[in-house]
Parts: sequence; C-alpha cells; structure tokens
Amino acid sequence: MTGKLIVFEGGEGTGKTTQIRLLAAALDHDVLVTRQPGGTSLGQTLRGLLLDSPPGSISDRAEALLYAADRAQHVDEVIRPALTAGTTVISDRWVDSSLAYQAAGRGMDPAWVAELSRWATAGVQPDLTVLLDIDPAVGLARAARRGAADRLEAETLDFHHRVRWAYLRLAAANPSRYLVVDAALPVDAIAHLVHAYVFQITADRKAAA
Amino acid sequence: MTGKLIVFEGGEGTGKTTQIRLLAAALDHDVLVTRQPGGTSLGQTLRGLLLDSPPGSISDRAEALLYAADRAQHVDEVIRPALTAGTTVISDRWVDSSLAYQAAGRGMDPAWVAELSRWATAGVQPDLTVLLDIDPAVGLARAARRGAADRLEAETLDFHHRVRWAYLRLAAANPSRYLVVDAALPVDAIAHLVHAYVFQITADRKAAA
Repeated sequence: MTGKLIVFEGGEGTGKTTQIRLLAAALDHDVLVTRQPGGTSLGQTLRGLLLDSPPGSISDRAEALLYAADRAQHVDEVIRPALTAGTTVISDRWVDSSLAYQAAGRGMDPAWVAELSRWATAGVQPDLTVLLDIDPAVGLARAARRGAADRLEAETLDFHHRVRWAYLRLAAANPSRYLVVDAALPVDAIAHLVHAYVFQITADRKAAA
Repeated sequence: MTGKLIVFEGGEGTGKTTQIRLLAAALDHDVLVTRQPGGTSLGQTLRGLLLDSPPGSISDRAEALLYAADRAQHVDEVIRPALTAGTTVISDRWVDSSLAYQAAGRGMDPAWVAELSRWATAGVQPDLTVLLDIDPAVGLARAARRGAADRLEAETLDFHHRVRWAYLRLAAANPSRYLVVDAALPVDAIAHLVHAYVFQITADRKAAA
C-alpha cells in the first residue's frame, strides 16, 4: 500500500472537520477525505444508529461492536483500495476513538477494545495521527453552539475528561506517529502546524502552495 | 439465572419458526419467544441490514461484527433479564449460527468467531439447542416456496452444505446440550420429539397437555 493514511482525532468541538478541509485543500488532488463512523453506505446507517439513538438504547458492548463493524466495512471497501492505489487518505477518527470513548470513557476492557479494533481494521494503521487537544469544557461549549448534542456530546464532563487523557496517553506512548496540537490556537495557526508536518511525510504539496 | 434458554438452530427451510411456535404453545404462559438477529429494536434494524442488503455490500468481517452487535444488545436488553426473572426463553438462532455461517460457510477463523461470540453473549449459553437437520437441497427448495430469497438463501449449495456439517459437528462435540432432529420428518413427529425432551429439562408443561 503506497498511499498515506492521515487520521484526525480529538474530543468534541476540537475543529477536526475544519482542519481536515484545510489539509485536503492544501494537498494535491489525489486525496480521499472520509470518516468513522460513516465512510461507507453501511457505515452511514450505523452512524445514524450510533449518534442519534436515544441514550440507553444501545448497550456498551453493542456500541463497541457497531463501531468495529463500521470500521471493518470501511477498511475493506474504501481504505485499503485507496491506499493500494496510492491515494492519500484523511480520515475523521480511527481506532483511537474507540480506545478513548469505549475503553477510557465507558470503562470497557482496553485490551479487548484494542483486539477488536485491530481485527476490525485488519491491521491497517495510520501513518500519522493528528490529535487536536482541548479542555473538554471549552470543546463542548463550542460543539453546543454548533447545534443539537448527539449521544456522545450528551455524556458527562467527567466522561470527556477520561476521553481526553486517554488520547494524550496514546500519543505519549507513540510520539513518532502522533502530532498533538493545541486546539485552542487560532484555526490558521493549527493549519500551519499540521500542514508543515504532513508535507514532511507526504512530500506532496500543491505546486502553488 | 433461573430461567431456561432453549435455542433452535438449523439451515434454511428446516421449519424452526413452526417448531418454536408449537413448543411455546405447549409450554405454560411464562415463555418468551425471540430471535437472532432481530430480538431488540436495534436488532431489528441490524436484521434488515444483514438479510436484505444486496450481495457484496457487507464485507465478511463487518457481517460477523454486526451479528455480534445484535447478540450483545439481545443479551443485555432481553435475554439476561428474562432468565433472571425465571422466564423460559426460546430463541430462533444463537452463537452456533455464526460458527456455522460465518466460520464454516464464509471461511472466517473459527477461533475468532467463537471468541467474538462468547464476548457478545457475555458467556450466556443455551440449556438446550434443538438442531433441525435437513439436506440443504431440500431445505432450500422449501425456503424458496416461502417467498423471495434473502442474502443467506442466495448463497451456493456448497455454502449450505458447509453450514450443515458445521452444525452437526457442534452437536457431536457436546451431545448433552443438543437435540438433533431430522427436519424431513412430519411436523407433528418433530414436535413430539422436541416437546418430550424439553419437558424433561423444564418440568414445565401445561396442566392440560
């Protein structure tokens, strides 16, 4: 697989969508922007179930398995073919989201979540994970201004603190694969940091940039 | 958990639905009839995805994970509470369906499917599995008369032979938990065999029976 997989991770309201759009525009045309959950037709249905179901209607174990199913379909149908074709893939969320939300957030066994995720992705790993980090109180306030809260945004602040620290621990354990950026910085400053780092690993910038 | 869990397994066209209805009628009123996939609200949605999606639209790995998600929700929301309340539960399919269809049928790693299933059911096991066994050519012809083929019925005959032998191997490996019945027998004869066996383990028959 000759393409690069770049993943954006982070809690609610960290600006992942904006930064993904800016990065895709800065790279050349051979870029696929996708997301988990929801990067396939099956995944779109699962995303609706996962984010819009009433609280309590999906058990923790079922939730973890639905995320894994979304991920398996995503890798088989979209990610692996794109990387094999040499395309740069930018994904909004990957396995770390399950380690942060299902394991640290919901208290599920991290070893099981890791094993399930490894199997669901058939071992495909990001070349770079950009972690947008912010105080959950700030991030949630931003997300609230954006519209109605989904199931994850409706969790307690303590839940979101556990998610944040899980992300930071994952980044600290594997610094060469992570870029941690303060998501409280101005949008342009974040984009500058991200693009500089990504251009190093892809050597793939617009001629006009 | 004081209730008994009785599961019906078998290939297409083996008459599980009819036999479940007859058994539920023969037992006293405290019986819950349910199924996998589709025993919960989430499961109903997943059942629609699993059985009605066009062939090729769900990868083998995603399919296995969707069945597991259905099962996890089913156990957490329906099965465990019912068994704890002392209810006799009759389920149309359980873990053996994944071992037969996903592992033997699709060729997925049986050890992984078993581990995934164990985790999805949180270790809840049937007290009795009634395996309705039939030559797949006969069973599929019966199912075809019933209406449009779903995704599983549309598989090759060879697939269904692998499913049948996987079921028979599971039963042979644990005879005290299985009742294998020739599904080519008349409906009444099958019901007689099943009810006699179930009454032994539940001691729970209608006064009028």
